[in-house]
Amino acid sequence: MISIGIDIGGTSIKGAGITKEGKVLEVFSLPVDKQDNQETTINKLIDAVNNYIKEQGFKKEEILGIGLGVPGVMDTKAGVITYSNNLQWYELPIVEMMEKGTGLKVKITNDANAAALGEGRYGAGKKYKNIIMVTLGTGVGGGIIIDGKLFEGNLGKGAELGHTVVVIDGEQCSCGRKGCLEAYASATALIRDTKRAMEQHKESKCWEIAEKLGKVDARVAFEADRLGDPVGHQLVENYVKYLGEGLLNYFNIFRPEAVILSGGIANEGEYLLSRLRKYFEERNYGFQGTPKVELLVSELGYDSGKIGAGALFF
Amino acid sequence: MISIGIDIGGTSIKGAGITKEGKVLEVFSLPVDKQDNQETTINKLIDAVNNYIKEQGFKKEEILGIGLGVPGVMDTKAGVITYSNNLQWYELPIVEMMEKGTGLKVKITNDANAAALGEGRYGAGKKYKNIIMVTLGTGVGGGIIIDGKLFEGNLGKGAELGHTVVVIDGEQCSCGRKGCLEAYASATALIRDTKRAMEQHKESKCWEIAEKLGKVDARVAFEADRLGDPVGHQLVENYVKYLGEGLLNYFNIFRPEAVILSGGIANEGEYLLSRLRKYFEERNYGFQGTPKVELLVSELGYDSGKIGAGALFF
Repeated sequence: MISIGIDIGGTSIKGAGITKEGKVLEVFSLPVDKQDNQETTINKLIDAVNNYIKEQGFKKEEILGIGLGVPGVMDTKAGVITYSNNLQWYELPIVEMMEKGTGLKVKITNDANAAALGEGRYGAGKKYKNIIMVTLGTGVGGGIIIDGKLFEGNLGKGAELGHTVVVIDGEQCSCGRKGCLEAYASATALIRDTKRAMEQHKESKCWEIAEKLGKVDARVAFEADRLGDPVGHQLVENYVKYLGEGLLNYFNIFRPEAVILSGGIANEGEYLLSRLRKYFEERNYGFQGTPKVELLVSELGYDSGKIGAGALFF
Repeated sequence: MISIGIDIGGTSIKGAGITKEGKVLEVFSLPVDKQDNQETTINKLIDAVNNYIKEQGFKKEEILGIGLGVPGVMDTKAGVITYSNNLQWYELPIVEMMEKGTGLKVKITNDANAAALGEGRYGAGKKYKNIIMVTLGTGVGGGIIIDGKLFEGNLGKGAELGHTVVVIDGEQCSCGRKGCLEAYASATALIRDTKRAMEQHKESKCWEIAEKLGKVDARVAFEADRLGDPVGHQLVENYVKYLGEGLLNYFNIFRPEAVILSGGIANEGEYLLSRLRKYFEERNYGFQGTPKVELLVSELGYDSGKIGAGALFF
């Protein structure tokens, strides 16, 4: 028995048969045409799925169902995408449409949740049953696995781990509030802080590094820190502090066994992780007898979303 | 069929038979003697429970089990109290001891969780299945109900809703971190802020109010605000802002149907609630299609802990 796991992105949709062992079979993909209305996009997806099943020679009886990871706000029980900013979808009854079009059972979840489920069951988190996954990209996304199952909050509309305020009246966040974790721990935030520091410190090595890269991105501060630049060092120290405090908050709410970091900034790997671990060790006081939280980086990369969407049926 | 719900406090233990409808039968209580070691306390509790069952004429077959709400950190699955600061209990295998001593099945949870479960199932939250309860007392406690069930985090060691930082580098918290919600939204914090404001404003009506009450407590700021005092007004505005931001964080993580406030400050009732609702309406942006969160105060008062502990079996 397999499932079909589909990762819907703003520019393309990728899917594949997923085995219970988390193996990704042949992958199919289709572009998202911004000119199409939402119904047309879903009809194209239905055709792509039906063709894929035919081409692969899968029997319908061996497919448990189709899992979809979608960027946006949704009612997972009703099977409706309430709103997707990336896709410009509104009140889209995606589950009903896809079930009619494919004759298979369909489940949906948020894309960050799908990635967390994939990574939690088959990737860096496979030894653990209670995991928080935090994606450090353009924004800060989150996924929560409790007792091996996805925890999405009421109606699948929770787990917005990037949108909790850690500095009241702090930096403006994309969501409208001020001081969210996303406004401090996203790549966007680190780039903002790097640019600010560079303006104040013309002598910083950040300038040469940015010139080599052709832009100021989230790697500049880390690279400058590695080269012993005091401005880079301060930027990384600051980043670790804000991300560290945000993660400690989630320790106290969920008490996970492991936290998995993904997204661009997680590519800094042990350089970031070792600094975060030190931060936690010095500050995980107050709650005696609480177990240690392992800090890890993701292993599955871009496959985690497809695998996790498929895992909605395992 | 009934259960026995027991609320363990720092100075006394109160218990009662609880019906499936949430009715509290005859109550028994015993003092906690600080001279007793933890085993002696549990043995006294076992005697009290056995006597109570005998006196009430309950048959063992009609009792589903004994639920305990305990202040402290515990492993709910193992049935062990890891640490209770109030009771000075360490690594206490309370479930095993009580099961041996009573011949009944025993379950434990944190006292704040028990209160949330009671209030959620039988009190202010009974119309809802997804609730956050926040206790605004000496500290800030929390309980989370998802799909009608208690959500305690891994090993029952999560749900520490008062101990999430909302102001990095902010006010010192009792847990050791700085800037926790508890350090802004507890009665202790409001009293601290009231005293500070009074020192700066000798003309404030807070002074007379405190004199009448014989102390500066958490009511002073609210009473002064009601009397049109600008210092009281600023204190209440500030309190609403910090509590409001903390609650909005929990909206984004859990997306509850309702938030129930309890504890001393919740006695301000609609005066506080209407101000918080206004704060939410102006700031619940960013996530279109998210349902409204009802804001309520607790209805069961001190019974909520006993009822909730009993409800661990329903």
